[in-house]
Amino acid sequence: MSSEYDHALSLEACLSPKMLDLYDLTDKAVVVIDIFRATTTICAALEKGAEAIIPVASIEETFQYKEKGYLVGGERDGQKVDGFDFGNSPREFWDNPIRSETLVLTTTNGTRALNAAQSAKRVFIGSFLNLEILCQKLMQLKEPVLLLCAGWRNHVNLEDTLFAGAVASRLSFETDFIYDAALTAKLLYERKEKDLMSTIKAGSHYQRLLRRGAKKDIPFCLSKNKVNIVPEWGGEHITAKQRIPSSS
Amino acid sequence: MSSEYDHALSLEACLSPKMLDLYDLTDKAVVVIDIFRATTTICAALEKGAEAIIPVASIEETFQYKEKGYLVGGERDGQKVDGFDFGNSPREFWDNPIRSETLVLTTTNGTRALNAAQSAKRVFIGSFLNLEILCQKLMQLKEPVLLLCAGWRNHVNLEDTLFAGAVASRLSFETDFIYDAALTAKLLYERKEKDLMSTIKAGSHYQRLLRRGAKKDIPFCLSKNKVNIVPEWGGEHITAKQRIPSSS
Repeated sequence: MSSEYDHALSLEACLSPKMLDLYDLTDKAVVVIDIFRATTTICAALEKGAEAIIPVASIEETFQYKEKGYLVGGERDGQKVDGFDFGNSPREFWDNPIRSETLVLTTTNGTRALNAAQSAKRVFIGSFLNLEILCQKLMQLKEPVLLLCAGWRNHVNLEDTLFAGAVASRLSFETDFIYDAALTAKLLYERKEKDLMSTIKAGSHYQRLLRRGAKKDIPFCLSKNKVNIVPEWGGEHITAKQRIPSSS
Repeated sequence: MSSEYDHALSLEACLSPKMLDLYDLTDKAVVVIDIFRATTTICAALEKGAEAIIPVASIEETFQYKEKGYLVGGERDGQKVDGFDFGNSPREFWDNPIRSETLVLTTTNGTRALNAAQSAKRVFIGSFLNLEILCQKLMQLKEPVLLLCAGWRNHVNLEDTLFAGAVASRLSFETDFIYDAALTAKLLYERKEKDLMSTIKAGSHYQRLLRRGAKKDIPFCLSKNKVNIVPEWGGEHITAKQRIPSSS
């Protein structure tokens, strides 16, 4: 173990925003996780050159931003909202980058989780797209970490739990697990790491995305290390201005 | 599939009582799970001949029962309470049966979960001790099932999640998973089924029990199918009067 990582990192996982009030966030680095699809979309849009993302809770508020000239995107229960410029597909932003503009995004579960994490010391955005660089960042920070799964309607979901497990697995050689949720996620991920796609097919959200014609988003959302940024929420905007050198 | 089990059973898991208000219990058979150690202890005591168990929330209320002549047992944060007749070790009741008497039991997490499940159609007690007979009962009932993990201080714990996974694994050929928690528990259990003891050693509660001198309880609590009863809570008492023939 290098001297850079010479003390144990406390690592916890909250498998649903419903359980978040069990944690004191004030000293923690929180990683918000909504694999299908908000946090994947945020990573994709910022990697491809968007300036910032403003997550908002309501459709009404999103339209107020649109009237001011912002590009707006998002979904309700997985479906694009009429009148929005974009849905919530990460591939839209990957294939058609909106460079140097601020995007306003509203999603059901992801926005709820972001808002719930407001009192944390720092709030980062995690997805399989930035798994490795996120883990490097967390190890460098040496702050207690809480992995916050957005879930589905406050229920535990499979894909966010698997991603929490991926982070716990990557960091585990130097972490203290206080409660069992991070360990549980890690044990699950380590069983399924080589077979994520077929595991996800058993989950409820896979079927939901299929019904909504978002099948191609699924392998995209499970692609590891496509981007080299760790988006951070500053309270109003999510940005990733400082690109992290891949050699760090 | 036999005609006896000819329709799919809805099976959900609630990994912490904190999330229980996401579920409508009124039509459900709820299985309360507190592997270390309340539901294991309840199964052990009733198997060995106790007449009934009254779960109570507070130490004060437990002493009121003691003054009326009841045998009382239980723990707070895993430790026996001064003045009680018993702690919360299932082996106490296994090795020294209290036949034909009613036992009053108070535990931190198990009692909370039992109370939280009060509005359910039926409330059963699950532990590895009665895994097989419990699953038979659930399949015969054909009611929607909710597996309620007691957890630890409202956090998800490993041992209760593994047991929920054991039930989900046993029933899965005929179940519908609505949300992902039961599936997540099942995938975890199926990885770890053959190696439960070493998996549990990584969990936070294992260390807690070791510190409290309860090491021998751990393999006991993980022993499958030692009893042939499915205790049910009637609102005031937990009983298992009707022993189920093992051939059923």
